[in-house]
Amino acid sequence: MQGTSDNGRNSSVYYGKLNNYVNGEWVESKSTQIREVVNPATGQVIAHVPLSTDQEIEDAANTANEAFRAWRETPPVVRSRYFFKLGALLEENFEKLSRIIVEEMGKTLNEARGEMRRAIEEVECACGMPILMQGYVHEEVSPGIELKVIMQPLGVFFMVPAFNFPALVPLEYMPYAVAAGNTYITKPSTEVPITQTKIFELIDKVGFPPGVINMLHGSSGVVDKLLENNLVKGVSFVGSTPVGRLIYRKAAQHNKRAQCAAGAKNHFVIMPDADIDKTVSAMLSSFFGCGGQRCLAGAVAVTVGDVYEQLCGKFVESAEKLRLGYGLDNKTQLGPLVSKEHKANVVKFIEQGIKEGAKLILDGRKAEVKGFPNDAFLGPTIFDDVKPDMMIANEEIFGPVACITKVKDLDEALAIIENNRFGHSSLIFTSSGKSAREFEYRTTCGNVGINIGVAATMAFATLGGLKETNFGDLHGRSESVKFFTERKIVVSRWF
Amino acid sequence: MQGTSDNGRNSSVYYGKLNNYVNGEWVESKSTQIREVVNPATGQVIAHVPLSTDQEIEDAANTANEAFRAWRETPPVVRSRYFFKLGALLEENFEKLSRIIVEEMGKTLNEARGEMRRAIEEVECACGMPILMQGYVHEEVSPGIELKVIMQPLGVFFMVPAFNFPALVPLEYMPYAVAAGNTYITKPSTEVPITQTKIFELIDKVGFPPGVINMLHGSSGVVDKLLENNLVKGVSFVGSTPVGRLIYRKAAQHNKRAQCAAGAKNHFVIMPDADIDKTVSAMLSSFFGCGGQRCLAGAVAVTVGDVYEQLCGKFVESAEKLRLGYGLDNKTQLGPLVSKEHKANVVKFIEQGIKEGAKLILDGRKAEVKGFPNDAFLGPTIFDDVKPDMMIANEEIFGPVACITKVKDLDEALAIIENNRFGHSSLIFTSSGKSAREFEYRTTCGNVGINIGVAATMAFATLGGLKETNFGDLHGRSESVKFFTERKIVVSRWF
Amino acid sequence: MQGTSDNGRNSSVYYGKLNNYVNGEWVESKSTQIREVVNPATGQVIAHVPLSTDQEIEDAANTANEAFRAWRETPPVVRSRYFFKLGALLEENFEKLSRIIVEEMGKTLNEARGEMRRAIEEVECACGMPILMQGYVHEEVSPGIELKVIMQPLGVFFMVPAFNFPALVPLEYMPYAVAAGNTYITKPSTEVPITQTKIFELIDKVGFPPGVINMLHGSSGVVDKLLENNLVKGVSFVGSTPVGRLIYRKAAQHNKRAQCAAGAKNHFVIMPDADIDKTVSAMLSSFFGCGGQRCLAGAVAVTVGDVYEQLCGKFVESAEKLRLGYGLDNKTQLGPLVSKEHKANVVKFIEQGIKEGAKLILDGRKAEVKGFPNDAFLGPTIFDDVKPDMMIANEEIFGPVACITKVKDLDEALAIIENNRFGHSSLIFTSSGKSAREFEYRTTCGNVGINIGVAATMAFATLGGLKETNFGDLHGRSESVKFFTERKIVVSRWF
Amino acid sequence: MQGTSDNGRNSSVYYGKLNNYVNGEWVESKSTQIREVVNPATGQVIAHVPLSTDQEIEDAANTANEAFRAWRETPPVVRSRYFFKLGALLEENFEKLSRIIVEEMGKTLNEARGEMRRAIEEVECACGMPILMQGYVHEEVSPGIELKVIMQPLGVFFMVPAFNFPALVPLEYMPYAVAAGNTYITKPSTEVPITQTKIFELIDKVGFPPGVINMLHGSSGVVDKLLENNLVKGVSFVGSTPVGRLIYRKAAQHNKRAQCAAGAKNHFVIMPDADIDKTVSAMLSSFFGCGGQRCLAGAVAVTVGDVYEQLCGKFVESAEKLRLGYGLDNKTQLGPLVSKEHKANVVKFIEQGIKEGAKLILDGRKAEVKGFPNDAFLGPTIFDDVKPDMMIANEEIFGPVACITKVKDLDEALAIIENNRFGHSSLIFTSSGKSAREFEYRTTCGNVGINIGVAATMAFATLGGLKETNFGDLHGRSESVKFFTERKIVVSRWF
Repeated sequence: MQGTSDNGRNSSVYYGKLNNYVNGEWVESKSTQIREVVNPATGQVIAHVPLSTDQEIEDAANTANEAFRAWRETPPVVRSRYFFKLGALLEENFEKLSRIIVEEMGKTLNEARGEMRRAIEEVECACGMPILMQGYVHEEVSPGIELKVIMQPLGVFFMVPAFNFPALVPLEYMPYAVAAGNTYITKPSTEVPITQTKIFELIDKVGFPPGVINMLHGSSGVVDKLLENNLVKGVSFVGSTPVGRLIYRKAAQHNKRAQCAAGAKNHFVIMPDADIDKTVSAMLSSFFGCGGQRCLAGAVAVTVGDVYEQLCGKFVESAEKLRLGYGLDNKTQLGPLVSKEHKANVVKFIEQGIKEGAKLILDGRKAEVKGFPNDAFLGPTIFDDVKPDMMIANEEIFGPVACITKVKDLDEALAIIENNRFGHSSLIFTSSGKSAREFEYRTTCGNVGINIGVAATMAFATLGGLKETNFGDLHGRSESVKFFTERKIVVSRWF
Repeated sequence: MQGTSDNGRNSSVYYGKLNNYVNGEWVESKSTQIREVVNPATGQVIAHVPLSTDQEIEDAANTANEAFRAWRETPPVVRSRYFFKLGALLEENFEKLSRIIVEEMGKTLNEARGEMRRAIEEVECACGMPILMQGYVHEEVSPGIELKVIMQPLGVFFMVPAFNFPALVPLEYMPYAVAAGNTYITKPSTEVPITQTKIFELIDKVGFPPGVINMLHGSSGVVDKLLENNLVKGVSFVGSTPVGRLIYRKAAQHNKRAQCAAGAKNHFVIMPDADIDKTVSAMLSSFFGCGGQRCLAGAVAVTVGDVYEQLCGKFVESAEKLRLGYGLDNKTQLGPLVSKEHKANVVKFIEQGIKEGAKLILDGRKAEVKGFPNDAFLGPTIFDDVKPDMMIANEEIFGPVACITKVKDLDEALAIIENNRFGHSSLIFTSSGKSAREFEYRTTCGNVGINIGVAATMAFATLGGLKETNFGDLHGRSESVKFFTERKIVVSRWF
Repeated sequence: MQGTSDNGRNSSVYYGKLNNYVNGEWVESKSTQIREVVNPATGQVIAHVPLSTDQEIEDAANTANEAFRAWRETPPVVRSRYFFKLGALLEENFEKLSRIIVEEMGKTLNEARGEMRRAIEEVECACGMPILMQGYVHEEVSPGIELKVIMQPLGVFFMVPAFNFPALVPLEYMPYAVAAGNTYITKPSTEVPITQTKIFELIDKVGFPPGVINMLHGSSGVVDKLLENNLVKGVSFVGSTPVGRLIYRKAAQHNKRAQCAAGAKNHFVIMPDADIDKTVSAMLSSFFGCGGQRCLAGAVAVTVGDVYEQLCGKFVESAEKLRLGYGLDNKTQLGPLVSKEHKANVVKFIEQGIKEGAKLILDGRKAEVKGFPNDAFLGPTIFDDVKPDMMIANEEIFGPVACITKVKDLDEALAIIENNRFGHSSLIFTSSGKSAREFEYRTTCGNVGINIGVAATMAFATLGGLKETNFGDLHGRSESVKFFTERKIVVSRWF
Repeated sequence: MQGTSDNGRNSSVYYGKLNNYVNGEWVESKSTQIREVVNPATGQVIAHVPLSTDQEIEDAANTANEAFRAWRETPPVVRSRYFFKLGALLEENFEKLSRIIVEEMGKTLNEARGEMRRAIEEVECACGMPILMQGYVHEEVSPGIELKVIMQPLGVFFMVPAFNFPALVPLEYMPYAVAAGNTYITKPSTEVPITQTKIFELIDKVGFPPGVINMLHGSSGVVDKLLENNLVKGVSFVGSTPVGRLIYRKAAQHNKRAQCAAGAKNHFVIMPDADIDKTVSAMLSSFFGCGGQRCLAGAVAVTVGDVYEQLCGKFVESAEKLRLGYGLDNKTQLGPLVSKEHKANVVKFIEQGIKEGAKLILDGRKAEVKGFPNDAFLGPTIFDDVKPDMMIANEEIFGPVACITKVKDLDEALAIIENNRFGHSSLIFTSSGKSAREFEYRTTCGNVGINIGVAATMAFATLGGLKETNFGDLHGRSESVKFFTERKIVVSRWF
């Protein structure tokens, strides 16, 4: 049926049953538990993904552990060379991978391209490992005594990503772990496992030594088994707060390191002196980009003073015009959610909002996309008159649902942010240097945007996160090098 | 009875019942649970220490939390100024504090002075906080967009130290936490609470704002209550592996940060080309210094090849001559253990060693110190023919007990270290650059000594620790600044 | 005559003929060339300062060179300890030194106290030398090969300060040079040599090893002789552009390092959205503080758009009210210039301004201070209608002379700054984040103030400077550690 | 004639008259001064190189200056992307460029490949510019006041390389300068201009904005004109001490930055406990590799104690066996010198050595290479009994000439190094950790090798150099980022 259109809808192909990648080889899982991977726009099954067996999980951990010693003994500058190659291969396959992201996850092609650009930047940043893992030295801490501190890799790490950035999220961790000398297991999301599988084809092409980077398909069973496995040193997780907390605790239970980037409920504060048109444009992208399925997405618009009057109408009007459709269609501005099931969850929140008394001024539930009867599409949805104690103002919805709250001044806006249990992002729109500084200094979030709708960091920085948004003290990107290494102190003297 | 000697024995005074220090004031605990603090040399009760009540614990957490906002808003350069003053006061009270360390903990006066020097260096290092917590900035990550990363303090932290360095261990953490803008609760060891209490008199004199630095006396009750308290952000622990593991898990259970420096079993590898006299001298200090009650102490002497023959006799002979006595006596080279109870534990290990078939070639159990009938003294004890699988070769004894093991080459020595479940320190004595490099590169310990008996790091570095020696990814000293802060990412654009 | 007043005027004492400090001893110069040091407020001669002979200069260089080896072999942590002591002594003598600064240089007591605070911060920052001169290490750049980079001191350095901060300027360099392991010669300004002499009394009290820090009184003869001396490795200079350029060239001629912080002509841009009252207050301090004798002082007020109308009157009115007087008098807001001779130079610039057609709307030349007939006082002076091509708009006047220029927008203001041959500081006053970012990004100056009248950096940063404001690539404060050291690369392998 | 052999000799082609590359275009020089580029092995003229005219030089400077503003406003992460591409292109052309290096410079193909690997690493390292030029920020230096330090590029820089590494030397500077936001002019050596010209074909292919990277062929005329040009901000030089000194002075005369890496006379110290075979092998590579035309080459073998007896014979014997020939011949171990003229200079030094009384124990002057009658070949030459005061022991010869000196102990060896006027490299061969540490700590050279014949640093470090080996305080590779930028300090406050 999608085959009848020319706007990219017929591009869906069937990617087959996905294999694991272990010890430098593609291995078919013997698991009898197989899940379908569905293109959320078309409803087509585009691949099947196995839930790896306990034995396969143990084998992968053993393999990674065996590969560790030789890899750690490979100089960083040589390890980096593999990532220069991987970066070049990703660049070559930029367009192809972008399309796969759209097919399995639903976002628009431009959003997928943005994701790919960032993913490549992570790989490029990890190419700087010789500098990132530089140790330090004090020639003389006492007469004739030298003190040297070296960063050494630890062994096997693994990654449990969220579904929303099929290419990017695993690459916010793996390149740093591996370039630092560790070996690795990526467990892609079962909802979007194809992109990583394709990326592993490039990893295979690069020719990393067998066992250095592995991929296991599967679900919480893989996570549990790897957390219980003594050979594993730590885990990186990106996903919801309840799961993140669980993994953080279980990792500690097994004496492992854990870094868990979890939920968000981001406040978007608009001051009376904000540029209205640019603010609205940033709001559209922040609240509805990637279908609201980003940890950095805006969730609550906090209008300060009388800005509400100028802003609200324009916001709703513009949101209404967003063109819903298949991500591969060039005209599409908003794709489907990742799955019917996820849409159902988001719809429940909308119903809850109505029940709580918020005013539904734009209802995305009625949205329809011709030729795509699959029920994963949800149009932009806006609630007005949202009170800070409503559930929709507090829980992470992870869909294209905006809440509008009015406050009288910046202090009140900051109080709402402080009282929220998440501490991911908060954003301010203003032309005043004073308000921006005040906001940046006082807001209790790890990521702050000033006239920026999505306060995304770069590979060469890190990601922030306070309160229930983060478990652990070291986060992804270049900061994770410390997470993936232990300092070895060498004190020496000669006689 | 101690009054009859002139060698410092009569210096013990009674320090009274110790008070808590909360909100800038000395507060008497209402607890009915009071423990004795005993001078282990004389057996005299030199103070009483209360186990604070649940209410007192909660009050302290509240106080610290209330003090947080204003303290975090005090510029780092001003916060540092308090530590410059504290450093100067510690310098002024250097000798007095050194003597108190001896009185409550038992080590020799010179050992206590060494501890004080290091403790002052920690405070001095934290004076550099403006540089240690410097953020970074990228002027343009995209046209017109700036990315800034700031380190911000988190709130209330607390510290649970071991007994072996009454002055130093808490100061390996507190100054960094507090100069970074957090507020703090120190819970001194109930075995040695006097030194910290005296240091808090200096803290009081410095005039920190009330509530910024607090001290609660108590035991595991304090730890548990603070871990359960929502206002508390994290904990630093130094002590045994079982307790460290417990605290790491419980902290995770309550979504807190934890850094736990735990047990050790350090191998002292002697190569055939080592300088024998200097090696023996380093061994005496490493195995028996502070009564073997240091995480950095040597525990197993691994003699490589034929070095055993030249070394063993000299080692035993020199150990025998170590002068046991009261730490305040200038001639004393080895003080008592921290308590009779601890001695009893160490003696059990000795009995176990005999049972396992190790050869007891020097038996410290017979040691007597005239005029000090208290049963906390234990002389240097040496086991020969120790096999790697004996309990005495694997468990942390924390007393002046040396094990000797013979191996044929460096590979065998490294295999023993790798198989040990701890990863604290390992030490090599050799004149060969090649052996040193091989050892440094391959040994699976966080701290490495080359011709150094005690691989102590400095304030401006950090402490290493692998395997069961460490829980957490960021350690003490200047590295702990990252533990005590969260990175706040600020992305800004103007229009 | 000054003895008749109670407002501090009678505090002037005679400090005698000042001695050199060489090799840890006070040495009387045999020079026959002696200059008077005059209190610019009272006109009293308060000291005599010799111009050291060639032989004395050579002796000092030899002494410093001989002290180098042992000092370089003193561990950084021990070298820092001397500076902790020096910091504490400066703190103890804070008030006394502040008053001496007033006596010899003329600024107000509060200004002198501000200077002393900054001076102490430099010493405190240099206490962090173990971290500031940390080297780095790559464990394996190739299998088995380690690369280590250590910072090593070079030998003898010397300092030629300006007169305007008698305590601070030399301490922006010396502590870093010396704590980094070099030995040093300070040559105080002959106009204000007493403060440094008093500081050297504290240096003497600290007990640095003889020859490590030396002081030679004198003028350009000292500079020339030291630049020609083969034992000297480099020079730090703060002063005017012509002299800075000369020293930079002569140093290169003799293969030496040089860092020369030179002249300034700082533009103070006021946007229409600036807070007028706070801007005027900042202008008063920037243009007239320290009598305008600061490299960071405002020189040209560039009013944008119609802000001129609101601002100009208030500025003139407030400037008129500034209370001129002796710096030790608590009510004084503006002291005399450093000398009658310097005042004469400034007056020549005023005459030039009149000649060029600028409108003199406040004439400080008429200022009189009762009881202080000495002719070094000059009141706040303001020119309106200053054109960018007038000499008074381009040359460094170094006196309390403000020029007002009107422009239509920020672009025009930035163009004036870009065309100016200096690149020291520029300052903007605005409430707009956009204007601030634009200014910060585009202005061609090394130091930028946003709503800050004096963009002073801190010890733990550095000082900027572009175009004719700076000769050399590494500047003062913590950045100067690189200037004072050379990286030693050690590549090692063992077999 | 070369056409008759199959061992690569016939590969020489004529590369034509080389063009300048200015403003993104290939421009033919109008100069009437044209030099020949000669393959030193075959004597064939393989290209012609013009000496650019004054007008062409001025045009290039203007072009680079005009390109500066837009390039500086291109974000670093985008600028880096050009270098990722350049790195990939260099990788693709690895073999082709290696062969050109051999053709114009004479070294062996393997040596040329080593050079290319290092050259690529420089480009790769500069890809990390977002991190290398990261600024720093202090959130609060005073209540409400932020201090930010940004690194900003300065404008036009240029490079004057030596002839010995036609690909590498310019790439030790250019990528850092340009990725940091400056614009650039490379002036290749007129002796070896082809490799850079070919590299500029790749630069052209990358598609840098016109004017960002330019190449001007020419000699000292280009250097002088650019030093005199006000648009130029600084110069990087690699070459001899007399020229380096001249450029350093002339740059200062014109208020520019300069970093001049100059001459060397490197001592190779062999201790009695060195591994003889490995030492001899390292000596061959160090003294004779690249025909001794490396600043890192060994020049004087200092044998300590009785090691001379074991070493000398083996060294001479092995040196004799080195196979002289055309670099493109796979069997060749030693190629010709860069030119007949340079050989003549080296021969003069040999004659001088004989005259001074050194014992010529291996005379390379007699060497002949069949089929290559061109007079640029010189065989390994060894002098014994060289005294430290002979000219051949002090001057840089830059040819395959080894001097042997005997000393009694390490102190004496270090004294020779200290007395030498150069401070480039020194190398020790020993199995003793003690000797290595002693040497590393005390030797007065910037680069130290321990059991390494050529103490080459890596891109992510820097190059050392003391005494007459270096003029300037910041050197090449990643350290040069500071040389190529100025810190801009931004102090801000809002009200």
